[in-house]
Amino acid sequence: MSNVEDTWKSIDGGVAASKGFYAIGVQAGIAVVDKYDVALVFSQVQAQAAGVYTRNLVKAHPLYLTQRHLQNGLAQAIVINSGNANACVGEAGDQAALAMAKVVAMFMAVSEEDVLVASTGVIGVEMPIDRVLSGIRAASAELLGDMAKDIRGQKESSDDGAHRAALAIMTTDTKVKEHAYELPCSQGGVITLGGMAKGSGMIHPNMGTMLGFLTTDASVHSSELQRILREAVDESFNMVTIDGDTSTNDMVLLLANGASEITLNGEDLFNFEKMVKMMCVQLAQDIARDGEGASKFMEVMVSGAKTKEDAQKIARSICGSSLVKTALFGEDANWGRIFTAAGYAGAEFNPEKVDILLGDLIVAQAGRGLAFSEEKAKEILGFKDVHISLNLHIGEEHATAWGCDLTHEYVTINGSYRS
Amino acid sequence: MSNVEDTWKSIDGGVAASKGFYAIGVQAGIAVVDKYDVALVFSQVQAQAAGVYTRNLVKAHPLYLTQRHLQNGLAQAIVINSGNANACVGEAGDQAALAMAKVVAMFMAVSEEDVLVASTGVIGVEMPIDRVLSGIRAASAELLGDMAKDIRGQKESSDDGAHRAALAIMTTDTKVKEHAYELPCSQGGVITLGGMAKGSGMIHPNMGTMLGFLTTDASVHSSELQRILREAVDESFNMVTIDGDTSTNDMVLLLANGASEITLNGEDLFNFEKMVKMMCVQLAQDIARDGEGASKFMEVMVSGAKTKEDAQKIARSICGSSLVKTALFGEDANWGRIFTAAGYAGAEFNPEKVDILLGDLIVAQAGRGLAFSEEKAKEILGFKDVHISLNLHIGEEHATAWGCDLTHEYVTINGSYRS
Repeated sequence: MSNVEDTWKSIDGGVAASKGFYAIGVQAGIAVVDKYDVALVFSQVQAQAAGVYTRNLVKAHPLYLTQRHLQNGLAQAIVINSGNANACVGEAGDQAALAMAKVVAMFMAVSEEDVLVASTGVIGVEMPIDRVLSGIRAASAELLGDMAKDIRGQKESSDDGAHRAALAIMTTDTKVKEHAYELPCSQGGVITLGGMAKGSGMIHPNMGTMLGFLTTDASVHSSELQRILREAVDESFNMVTIDGDTSTNDMVLLLANGASEITLNGEDLFNFEKMVKMMCVQLAQDIARDGEGASKFMEVMVSGAKTKEDAQKIARSICGSSLVKTALFGEDANWGRIFTAAGYAGAEFNPEKVDILLGDLIVAQAGRGLAFSEEKAKEILGFKDVHISLNLHIGEEHATAWGCDLTHEYVTINGSYRS
Repeated sequence: MSNVEDTWKSIDGGVAASKGFYAIGVQAGIAVVDKYDVALVFSQVQAQAAGVYTRNLVKAHPLYLTQRHLQNGLAQAIVINSGNANACVGEAGDQAALAMAKVVAMFMAVSEEDVLVASTGVIGVEMPIDRVLSGIRAASAELLGDMAKDIRGQKESSDDGAHRAALAIMTTDTKVKEHAYELPCSQGGVITLGGMAKGSGMIHPNMGTMLGFLTTDASVHSSELQRILREAVDESFNMVTIDGDTSTNDMVLLLANGASEITLNGEDLFNFEKMVKMMCVQLAQDIARDGEGASKFMEVMVSGAKTKEDAQKIARSICGSSLVKTALFGEDANWGRIFTAAGYAGAEFNPEKVDILLGDLIVAQAGRGLAFSEEKAKEILGFKDVHISLNLHIGEEHATAWGCDLTHEYVTINGSYRS
């Protein structure tokens, strides 16, 4: 792959960086006060849209609504709340999700079917719907004001709507996760991609969620967009493991409003796909780095696999192993745990061919432990970022997964009582 | 099921309780001094034998030897060491396992092919084979002495060979796991079943192992024995989750030497099967209770499933969820995490039909949270044993899994450095 900087560049503006997109975050007091907890992302025109959802059989109410509203591949607004997952509360949950879409539709003067809804927070508790809808009304009003200023050319560079939106979707995340890139096209002009995400830790005290929202002003049909997003998510968000738990609310959405008036094809489409994937990887890495109680970031690269699926299974299995995670926390060059986690991944390989490296230090070769420098290993494991690689030596496929260590802090965060 | 006590009774003697079986443990100083670390289990006559092994693709060297030696369904001795897993060390590992079998065969005057070998401990480090073989020689000598005393009628009830064997297979286990039952047969006489196990925690510092060894003086053909053991293991050892990691060395063996001169059939065979399963469940529960750093024991019962496999998947998924385990540690009635873990188990169910109970307290009904007494929930979660049940209401099948909480102590134990 060529140097990323040669192809596109990072810019400011987060999820609203793309032409014709606006975003805002407000404080609605859903679970706590003084925290942004309602976000609204809006496109001036109806956009092509794609979505990827949790595979958990237990799905939150807004997820059903969003899937339904995305059946035609079109959307214009995304409303997101933190502080309540709107999951497992029965009929009231469906009504709450619908009410959120209706209020956005009414205030922003768009079709109800073009509004997508996402939630994250406590499961099994009914939404404080009055507060949520008040928040949406406030967000809509402020966003309309921002849009009016923009149209009149009065928008200031200090406007931080996108940043506030990124803050509003956070739960136990400790860092905002937002990026934007600009890609010059071979046909002239530029297209922009913006995005934000929240991590898969847990909102105090219930199951949290992995959410990702991407916007672009490129013109791409929803069916193409869906393929691009699916492939990008498979190699990014789906390769992050914090604690192996898949939430009821996980969702990644991508909207393309065509405001750049550039229809992608050939090299430009190829670069756009790479850029979407890179942004998803960057957001996924942000999530892994910000895992609950994490003190270290782990990247596991598996190469020489017969199939990509096998490489992914092994990389994810290693990232998800409690024993590997605690060894990482303890800075212990315990490659036996790494090898073992590979062995139960359900992938095909020959144990007698496997090489294992910590950073650039070979600790096992052809399935056997080597006499390596413990001092060097200690140094490598002492860094905040630790790279583990396995070469299976039976094929050409590879995959990378990301995770973090398992710490006392994780137990403290997740072992604390809700009230 | 009728009351267990009506059918068979618990007796002393552990793995050597059955007629014609002997066991011993010695201190060979394999990894540490002053710890029993070599165990020898011996049958006076060649026994029918069955084995169930780890599904991990990375397998320890003794596992291959034991599988090979068990191909004919016959065995007479089992030698087990702790302190070193004899895994991932190449040719030297195969040679070490073979040497262990050869030394037992020589001293105990049995065929090398009738000796089974198991190991547990650090992965990727060559066995200190001299010490191991010295230990086996000492164990054999002492066992021959015990047998001679027994034949002369001088065996004392204080002889603790089986107990020392159970101690010798322990790693980070804090409690000895051994049981023995006596079953009166309808045809007259009694048969005996003895057993010992070690837990799936980790030996400091590497991947530990789940090992189980059962002996009986009933006469059962190896093919029948294999079926009985397979079914028992599936509903016991395979339903225990400590940290989700499957070791390279896991193994459960069952030997039947026929010394009772009772050939099982009809009701007696049925009761024997139940008894084997019950012992495996009891040993599995012992393992869960003694999970590394565990402060609580969790039993998860899933009923109303369409298939047994679905019920097992869900029960295991809940027991294995880091979020459920930390909630248990925090005594938090967080049923959302339980429901979520069910949802990603890969089993079929309708979320809108599921009831969830903590002890006898219904916390969710038909997939929705109920307003339950937090006080009552706190009381239930305050006990050392916590029972979680789910009724899926779509079928008749059920399954039970066992696990423990995830504590600070777990992170401390597994995050500590090897040296």
